[in-house]
Amino acid sequence: MAELGTLVLLRHGQSTWNAENLFTGWVDVPLSEQGEQEARKGGQLLAESGLLPDVVHTSLMRRAISTANLALDAADRHWIPVKRDWRLNERHYGALQGKNKKQTLDEFGEEQFMLWRRSYDTPPPPIDPADEFSQVGDARYADLGDAAPLTECLKDVVARLLPYWESAIVPDLRAGKTVLVAAHGNSLRALVKHLDGISDDAIAGLNIPTGIPLRYDLTEDLKPVTAGGTYLDPEAAKEAAAAVANQGR
Amino acid sequence: MAELGTLVLLRHGQSTWNAENLFTGWVDVPLSEQGEQEARKGGQLLAESGLLPDVVHTSLMRRAISTANLALDAADRHWIPVKRDWRLNERHYGALQGKNKKQTLDEFGEEQFMLWRRSYDTPPPPIDPADEFSQVGDARYADLGDAAPLTECLKDVVARLLPYWESAIVPDLRAGKTVLVAAHGNSLRALVKHLDGISDDAIAGLNIPTGIPLRYDLTEDLKPVTAGGTYLDPEAAKEAAAAVANQGR
Repeated sequence: MAELGTLVLLRHGQSTWNAENLFTGWVDVPLSEQGEQEARKGGQLLAESGLLPDVVHTSLMRRAISTANLALDAADRHWIPVKRDWRLNERHYGALQGKNKKQTLDEFGEEQFMLWRRSYDTPPPPIDPADEFSQVGDARYADLGDAAPLTECLKDVVARLLPYWESAIVPDLRAGKTVLVAAHGNSLRALVKHLDGISDDAIAGLNIPTGIPLRYDLTEDLKPVTAGGTYLDPEAAKEAAAAVANQGR
Repeated sequence: MAELGTLVLLRHGQSTWNAENLFTGWVDVPLSEQGEQEARKGGQLLAESGLLPDVVHTSLMRRAISTANLALDAADRHWIPVKRDWRLNERHYGALQGKNKKQTLDEFGEEQFMLWRRSYDTPPPPIDPADEFSQVGDARYADLGDAAPLTECLKDVVARLLPYWESAIVPDLRAGKTVLVAAHGNSLRALVKHLDGISDDAIAGLNIPTGIPLRYDLTEDLKPVTAGGTYLDPEAAKEAAAAVANQGR
């Protein structure tokens, strides 16, 4: 059997809506210029570490796809095979999609705001299918039919992510590949929760910084060799995680 | 059986070496800024024509990959499945790779120059594996081993392209998909030669312009409904083809 490959997680850089402090979810906004720079920096970190992806998995969303494209180009690995799946998408933010985070905080108060942002099993209210920020009718989700979510809590993300982890990512790791997963704050939190066996309560405190590759070496039974993995730029990761925790303030 | 899908060919926009008038072949140079604009324009043409790709096939080379990425992003189809293969690569230009076209013309004369550029079955001399512009040792071609070319004529490109056409592109067309092929002047000439049944002599006169999607509707036996296909911007295609024919002058 081939030696188990290496898993590398990369959260997309700043999007235009991150910059405007809006809840984004499944709304398909582009990276900001800062986000594009973060992606290229992430690719440089991969190259400098000699951690060269053999295959990349992305969500179906532009900010993760562009992050993968820019990072892989910077690492001279633009030519590797690409796999995409909606199961790597950001958490669907329901009726909050398109809403300003600060206004939502002011309107609903700290408790409700943090429940929607960080509760494991309480989703925001579902989005109206006719809402301008709903994805009903979007061609890329046509095959999902009624299975397409109108809102999600992190528990829902874990439930829809794990089948893809098992069926698509694990086989690449078992084949000995270095696997880059370019995705989102909450789909990556869901994966890290699973890998590190983090409790439903403790996951609320975990923030994954943008643009800094997070390396997981795994044992044969897919447990992390180092709990929490290893950021390729640990100092920058620490600062960035603190900044994410303060969003909406 | 599903109705046969639509084939769309897209030659990458200007690369930095096109701009410098160098023979490029398998040297993996990036798009110039003009080339990036051409790619976005190509994507806009797809969107305006409602010709939305369901899947994209690219070579393993940055200028085709970036063209696909930029065009699909402009057409809001960045999320479709991606397939890449070396068989879509540009013709390997052998010992000419990295050489200035004008200097080569002056040094070897019009006859030899045109033979290398346009002869169907006379390849340039093979590149020295130790040459700085050889791809020996490039990780993306490691699986090819001795099958990796050191030079190619168009006949060689046809021979290595057709297995991919049959095994990877045709099945997508048979499944009813709109298939975008983002590739190179000579790999697309090889495909068009096959589709339109162009003779070994006549193919020398065919130039495919950059950045303008070329649509082929095909019959059940994979013959073009309209010989030569249809450019989405016929006027621009005519002007661009004339410009390509004058390269090296």
